[in-house]
Amino acid sequence: MRAYNFCAGPAALPLAVLEKAQQEMLDWHGKGLSIMEMSHRSADYVAVAEKAEADLRRLMNIPENYKVLFLQGGASLQFSAIPLNLLGKNSQADYIHTGIWSEKAYKEAQRYGDINIIDAATQIDGKFAIKPQHQWTLNSDAAYLHYVDNETIGGLQFDQIPDVNVPLVADFSSSILSAPLDVTQFGIIYAGAQKNIGPAGLTLVIVREDLLDQARSDIPSILKYSAQAKNDSMVNTPSTYAWYLSGLVFEWLLEQGGVDAIHQVNLEKAKLLYGYIDASEFYNNPVALPNRSLMNVPFTLLRTDLEKQFLQEAEANHLLNLAGHRSVGGMRASIYNAVPLEGIQALVGFMDDFAQRHG
Amino acid sequence: MRAYNFCAGPAALPLAVLEKAQQEMLDWHGKGLSIMEMSHRSADYVAVAEKAEADLRRLMNIPENYKVLFLQGGASLQFSAIPLNLLGKNSQADYIHTGIWSEKAYKEAQRYGDINIIDAATQIDGKFAIKPQHQWTLNSDAAYLHYVDNETIGGLQFDQIPDVNVPLVADFSSSILSAPLDVTQFGIIYAGAQKNIGPAGLTLVIVREDLLDQARSDIPSILKYSAQAKNDSMVNTPSTYAWYLSGLVFEWLLEQGGVDAIHQVNLEKAKLLYGYIDASEFYNNPVALPNRSLMNVPFTLLRTDLEKQFLQEAEANHLLNLAGHRSVGGMRASIYNAVPLEGIQALVGFMDDFAQRHG
Repeated sequence: MRAYNFCAGPAALPLAVLEKAQQEMLDWHGKGLSIMEMSHRSADYVAVAEKAEADLRRLMNIPENYKVLFLQGGASLQFSAIPLNLLGKNSQADYIHTGIWSEKAYKEAQRYGDINIIDAATQIDGKFAIKPQHQWTLNSDAAYLHYVDNETIGGLQFDQIPDVNVPLVADFSSSILSAPLDVTQFGIIYAGAQKNIGPAGLTLVIVREDLLDQARSDIPSILKYSAQAKNDSMVNTPSTYAWYLSGLVFEWLLEQGGVDAIHQVNLEKAKLLYGYIDASEFYNNPVALPNRSLMNVPFTLLRTDLEKQFLQEAEANHLLNLAGHRSVGGMRASIYNAVPLEGIQALVGFMDDFAQRHG
Repeated sequence: MRAYNFCAGPAALPLAVLEKAQQEMLDWHGKGLSIMEMSHRSADYVAVAEKAEADLRRLMNIPENYKVLFLQGGASLQFSAIPLNLLGKNSQADYIHTGIWSEKAYKEAQRYGDINIIDAATQIDGKFAIKPQHQWTLNSDAAYLHYVDNETIGGLQFDQIPDVNVPLVADFSSSILSAPLDVTQFGIIYAGAQKNIGPAGLTLVIVREDLLDQARSDIPSILKYSAQAKNDSMVNTPSTYAWYLSGLVFEWLLEQGGVDAIHQVNLEKAKLLYGYIDASEFYNNPVALPNRSLMNVPFTLLRTDLEKQFLQEAEANHLLNLAGHRSVGGMRASIYNAVPLEGIQALVGFMDDFAQRHG
């Protein structure tokens, strides 16, 4: 039987997507071969790729002056690709630091430019939070401002989009497609696929066209947005099967009613889980209310000696991958789009049973 | 029904591999989730990844002083990663130019070093060939010599390994695992997966340990071999599903009897196809005998006006993707490991029938 999978990434995929991929595995649409055996330049494959992009544009309401790129290497390769693409004319950039991923991002950027780091992680009444923008010291001459919308490990999320006069560049790896987003406020939105998009091995970059001409001369061609945009993300062979699967996820999202509809489900899921944790004396979430992540819910047990037992019993109850990130420990439930409300209900039921037995 | 697929890449995969992937798609080994939904750091996934590496080491007889990396971005990203990894101490390198891919490789390298280009493409009696090594002007101070073993587009392959005193770095994208290879003669062997390894989106790099400490300081962390080697190719999330599928391909190869056994089949396939072309007055292969590719067989029709009809009729006979690369035209049959002898027999049968009707 299928379990409920709370992995932070690679993460749960919609069952309907996996079933369709399974059905089409040996012979895609009667063509006599798997889609992963097709040339990326064949008419059949190009149609699949183009439909995935069109569906994503519809889901996110992406304006025409933005290019959508389907790349490889993960958000971590973009940590280098972004400064290589944007610091060719002006080598100054602002980076907001709120956790482990935003730190990785600025460390890569420091290799290529003059990086102003804004430490925006703080605590309010003992809970992790993000400093409000009026406390940030920004550089008005920066080529861009970079931030990570949702720190997957800390479960710390921005409650609003920064309001600045330079292009906003944001890592939405673990929050893209979870809630409505006004793309026009951004210069670049990027995301590794393995949370809300599809399988690992695909990276989405949504980039405003006026940012395509600022690359450094030492940038590898494969990382260059202008080259990828001109070649429809096919400067070389893309990750064709992951791109196809992301297209199936986008179709599934449209069938669910789009981002607005899935957002309502996500709000309900988060309310149920955070609400239970807050009402419990046995569990604790370490994040201040305004900055709680909609997608990644870290929590601790009152009795840390029971962590291992908690994880073992959860797994026996078909509730998988609830361990926190190896760098912070504790528990974490990632409740991405593909995790249904029933999964949260089952999790809360188990947590309550466990607490009653051990509280 | 399944067709015979002669695509140059992404290319045919063994049917048994696709069937196993299909069977395991929804629930891998009774764990309640797909392998593409698993954390790359979970014990189950790490075991899959390690077995794939162990099987590859066995297939290629890779010594312990070589690291095997499972990366992203294709051979084209390695065209940059190689000079970024190797030109930190000595910025000189030799590049053998034999076709389109070796040209792309040296053009990327020129961004990072002092590149000596050896034009080794020639013609012998009107047939394409590779100049013998004594005609090359090599730089004995080069950090390495780079070449592309098999030019996928031209169907032009080296008939021996260059004999030089600097580390050999070779792109084996379209020839890896097709024939026995003495890994100890190389500093680096690399290959995009989408021909003889697995689906697109995975790149294999086999690198000798003493070459791990020569990187330039401006290299992105994700491209750095030493960092990837230290982290078992998991500096960030790898292309987990493609890695799993490559493992299934390696298992299948071992079941076939390993590289020696598949090489015998490949020789038989090539003999049948080249033999038929050479005996025919209707078809022509443009490559000199010693440099004919074992994997990619380009050919032209005596009557070029019939090319479109040839492709249409071939497709109607379930013989797919025989068009030559868009840069050169004509026909090309890629006969990788996963294309069975029966496929070549069917192709030759069709070619002969077509020739008799139009010759």
